[in-house]
This record gives sequence, structure tokens and C-alpha cells, in this order.
Amino acid sequence: MPEFRQDSISGCQVIIATGRAGRPGRPEAFAAKNDVGPITGPSRVDWCPFCPGNETRTPPEILALGRKNGGPNMKGWAVRVVPNKFPAVELKQEPRRYCRPKNAIPVQTRPGYGVHEVLIETPAHNCHPGALEQSQMRLVVEAYRQRYADLAQNENLRFIQIFRNHGREAGASIEHPHSQLIALPFIPAKVQQEIERAHHYYLEHGDCPYCRILDRELGSGRRVIMANEAFVAYIPFAARLPFETWIVPRRHQSSLTEMSPLEADHLAGILNQVLGLFARALQNPPYHYYLHGAPLRAVELPHYHWHLELIPKLTTVAGFEMGTGVFINTTRPEEAAEYLCEVGEKNAERPDLLCPGFA
Amino acid sequence: MPEFRQDSISGCQVIIATGRAGRPGRPEAFAAKNDVGPITGPSRVDWCPFCPGNETRTPPEILALGRKNGGPNMKGWAVRVVPNKFPAVELKQEPRRYCRPKNAIPVQTRPGYGVHEVLIETPAHNCHPGALEQSQMRLVVEAYRQRYADLAQNENLRFIQIFRNHGREAGASIEHPHSQLIALPFIPAKVQQEIERAHHYYLEHGDCPYCRILDRELGSGRRVIMANEAFVAYIPFAARLPFETWIVPRRHQSSLTEMSPLEADHLAGILNQVLGLFARALQNPPYHYYLHGAPLRAVELPHYHWHLELIPKLTTVAGFEMGTGVFINTTRPEEAAEYLCEVGEKNAERPDLLCPGFA
Repeated sequence: MPEFRQDSISGCQVIIATGRAGRPGRPEAFAAKNDVGPITGPSRVDWCPFCPGNETRTPPEILALGRKNGGPNMKGWAVRVVPNKFPAVELKQEPRRYCRPKNAIPVQTRPGYGVHEVLIETPAHNCHPGALEQSQMRLVVEAYRQRYADLAQNENLRFIQIFRNHGREAGASIEHPHSQLIALPFIPAKVQQEIERAHHYYLEHGDCPYCRILDRELGSGRRVIMANEAFVAYIPFAARLPFETWIVPRRHQSSLTEMSPLEADHLAGILNQVLGLFARALQNPPYHYYLHGAPLRAVELPHYHWHLELIPKLTTVAGFEMGTGVFINTTRPEEAAEYLCEVGEKNAERPDLLCPGFA
Repeated sequence: MPEFRQDSISGCQVIIATGRAGRPGRPEAFAAKNDVGPITGPSRVDWCPFCPGNETRTPPEILALGRKNGGPNMKGWAVRVVPNKFPAVELKQEPRRYCRPKNAIPVQTRPGYGVHEVLIETPAHNCHPGALEQSQMRLVVEAYRQRYADLAQNENLRFIQIFRNHGREAGASIEHPHSQLIALPFIPAKVQQEIERAHHYYLEHGDCPYCRILDRELGSGRRVIMANEAFVAYIPFAARLPFETWIVPRRHQSSLTEMSPLEADHLAGILNQVLGLFARALQNPPYHYYLHGAPLRAVELPHYHWHLELIPKLTTVAGFEMGTGVFINTTRPEEAAEYLCEVGEKNAERPDLLCPGFA
């Protein structure tokens, strides 16, 4: 029997239906379905604008971390942040608020004010997160944190979305490992609703709903994939799509910038391990991840708890989902978590089972 | 310069950014990108469960229209409705409401009560809407109407989503032309929000916001693709994706069941013509469409106006959209409409340009 579930914070509605046609309910059936495949290409590609030595093919860099030699816009960097050459938003024109016209069907057009950056995660063209050295992943996390803190200085910006697309099917147009960041002069309605609902819970119950959910997940353990001192990775109760996974800090904190350096180490560690596990268990699937955090300059909100949402792209979002906003998940979250844990344990004992590059 | 737009009823936020990498802003650039291709296969396929003669491979039929010979579950039908063999929801267990527990992080699980049906649109395996005889399309519309009216009798059901996926990339797992229907015991949050916002507009301004938008679109004509006596097809001001198109009845009506038989003729006509135009202008792209209407048994709501939303799947929804709910549309709605109109006019004069099967 299918089952309805609802996320208690976002309100998102989900149908868990494991017996659908051509959509095998058993989690392992997904392993062979994707077409990204293990990464086996060369570590440097002549025409790739993100490879070392091609620094002039991107706009001038905003930030470089781990530079061992050379100057700005030369090779020698470990992580490099540049403006997106084809930005979705730009700083050209000042933002302005909508003027609601008297005739009441507003034709709401505003200049697309904002910032769109690319965070190049490694000089190595063929080395995706999950296969990175942990010290390299730590630099990626540091780049997220620094860009976040820096852009928060611009008072015209209200929200930053850090996100990553892996694989062409997940929207990645360049193969070289990179994340992106889009900063907006407004809080997206979807995020606003999430923060409002969390606030409502806080007013009613006096604490953070994400903290309570974390307690519940750690208590039952049925959906937990892995955990370290500072972070827990689990499949949410109302996962929208097969293997959706959240990485949540144990200590209450409303934005990335509140992380201690030690916590940032642990984030780099768990993110690397989760992505490595995904790559092994689901054969390097296409995926997205994105960070949800408090609006810019909002400090230590008691009701909001930043986290990372990771969504492998194993099924197609179709007309029903577009029309209703209700997702049909063909894999039960508890079974997906069990499968990932099994693979994790198996591979820990059998290093020969690892995909090349995924240590 | 990119541009922010917002749909005044759904509240959906959109970035119109036409200059993005590998995402050509000129509408015609999409024509060659899809992989569905013109439909050239055979009109009957032995193993297809939806082809005539294979009626026993589906669950017993619920409705057959245009039957010329044979009895139930035999060939001779023109349109056939059957239960989905692998349903996302089932009638097995009575629905029940969530009980909100005292500890306040509800683990909201309910049985997945509902109805999931397949509407087989034609006996011909290779004949998609847009290429259908208008009389055949009229039967499809009639099947929508009859199933809608029939399922509304079940007072446990609150909302019906009729939808269609075309092409594997849009989630169609069987090639034979078919629509689907999922009836739910609740109104999806996204639809509820749309109805609530329309209601709010009605309370404030005394009329239906969709009627006002239709006036505006017909007045400017910049986004209108085509129109007949009873329906208008236009690209919405805040289209989420390239070539998103809405088909809206001219006369105010809150659900499909309020259509007159003559209006149903016109719906069949415009839907066929729009899909035919899409097939020619964008080379038979993958697409979804779905109908948004009032909750079941809600009659003649003054604030809600049913309509069909058609979304070609030409770009990939990626991490940014999943995280924020904000869509990046790489094609300006006004240019997309202009392009479709040009192709429509050109092809009207040059029948030799038509794809085979698209008259």
C-alpha cells in the first residue's frame, strides 16, 4: 500500500509508492541506471576553462585558496572562485522593490540584480568530491564560508544559494568539479515559507524543530546513514526522491558562518564520505546539493538550523509533480538508508569493491 | 540584463536570463535539441499493453468511448480508460486525517488512498496529440470530463490531477499516447496556495484574477500564441521554463465539468493545434501538461478559473531551482511567443514544412 508523508517543516507532501512500473522499489535497482559512470578522464583538459593554465578563459578571480605559487589568475591555486561568465543575475543595476499598481494585476518586472559565482573545487579535472583529499574538501568548505561572509556585506542582497550540480542530467554543463553560488536581493518564497514554519514551531514549542528532528532521527537510527562529532547525515522521513539525504549540524546554528573551524573540518569529512558512498552505492549518480541557511546578516536565529540537502537524480520529475508539487518517491526512506549502510559496511571491509578514485 | 518576474496568482518567482552559457536565448535554438524526434514507428506494436488486441494486458477497463464493435476489454474502442497497473495511490484503505501528536514533530504517515488511472488516447501507437483527428481529440477531452465527474462522486477524494507526459525525458515510460489521472484525498499544498491567492484577489477586487490576466494578454497580444471562440493559448508573463504555455477558457469557469459541449469542441481544437505547433516549431519536444481546476464538488467558484499548463522539457531543472523554487528561464516569454507565431504562419503557407503526421 502506498503511503502519504509530509515534511513537518517545509510542508512538502510526498507519496511513497514502491511498486511502480519500471521504477523498481528495491534501492539497489538504481545502481545500474545512471549514465554518469565512474570518472576516468584525464586530470587536465586543454579546452576546459576551469583547468590550471586556462585562468584567462574565466573572468578575473574573486578568491583563490591554497595557492602554492604564481599570482592571481595564474596556476598554483587549490580552490578558485570566479564570476559566472553567463550569469543568471548581475550587479549592473540597483535592485528595487515592486510597485504594486492600482489595477491590481501587477506585471512585476525588476532588474535581475545579484551575484552569480563559480567555485572551482580542485585543479584536477577528473576528481569529484567523494574522491577529494579531505584537506582539499576543507578548502571548498572554506570557500563557501568566505564567499558567504563577504557577500553578506552587500546590504542589497538578502539570500545566498550555494549549490552543486553533478552530471549532465543534473544540469552540470561543465564537467570540471565546481559548485555555484547565486546571491539574490530577496528571500525565495520557498525558503521564506520554510523559515516561517520553523519560526511558528519555535513560538509554539520554544525550541528549534530541526534540533528535535535530529534527536528523533538519532533516537530511531532507521534513516541515519552516517554521523561524526559535528554532523549527521540522514534520509528525511518525507524524502521527495529516492536517496534524498540531509546533512545537518548537531549543534544548533542558523547559518554556515556560525560553524567553528573544527566543525568545518567535520563538514568536509562527512560530505566527502557521503558523496563517496553515493558514488559506490549508486555508481556515481547525477545529483544536486544545496545549502539552506538563514537570510544574510540574520545572526543566531533560535528557530532556523542550516543544513545541506543532497538529491540524487535517479528518476524523472514529471507532470504530476509539476502540477501538484507532490513528489512520488519510489523508494522507502528506511530501505534506502539500510541499503546505503550495507554498502558502506561492505566496502569498508572490501576496498577492492571501491570505484577507482573513490577511497 | 536579467529580469525578475513573479506570477501574480501562484506567487512563483522567475529569473528571465537569456544570455546563459550553452543555453541559447534565441527560441529557435531549442528546435534541434530534443531527442524525441518525429513519430515514425508502426501504428500497432505486439508487446504494447495499450494497443488494440492487447486489452487483457491491462486491468479491466473503466470506460471506453467511441466503441464501434466488440464488447468491454476487446478491441473496437477509440479511447480507453484503465486503472494504472502500478498505481501511486490505491483505494484499498480508507483515508484518514493526520493526528497531530503532542510531542509536536509529527511523523505524518497516512495510507496512500486514491485513484490512479491511464487514459489511452487512441488505438494508434504512433499518433500523438497534435496529429490526432479533431474528433478523436474531442473523445480524449470527453474522457477527461467523464472521469472527473465520476470520481467526484467519491466524497473521500478532494482533488484530481489530470496530466500527460510526452517523451521519455518528460517521464513517459510507455510510448503509446496516454494521459493519466491521480485523484487524492487532499488538495495539494501548491494548488491550495494558488486557490487561496486567487480568493484573496477576489475578496479585494471583486473579480477573478485569471479573467483579468486574460483581458491583459488579449489586450497586449505580445504573449498570445493562438485563440479560438472559447479558449486562448498564451505564454504566461512569468513563464517558469522556455515555451511554457497556458490554455485558458475565455468564459469564467472553475472546473472542467462546467464546459459546454461546444466549449469542449474548442478545447479539443486548440489543444490539438498548440501541440501540433509545438511539434513543428520545436521538433516534437518532450513535454508535460496538467489541468488545474477547483477542488472536487466545488461548483462555480467565482475566484478560480480552471486552465491547462503545458511545459516543454527543453532545459534541466537543477540544484538552484530545487533549493529556492525560483526558476531560471533562458527564453523571454515575448520572444518565445513571437517565434511560435512565426512558425505557425510559415507552416500555414508551406504544408511541405510540416512534420509527417502533423497536419
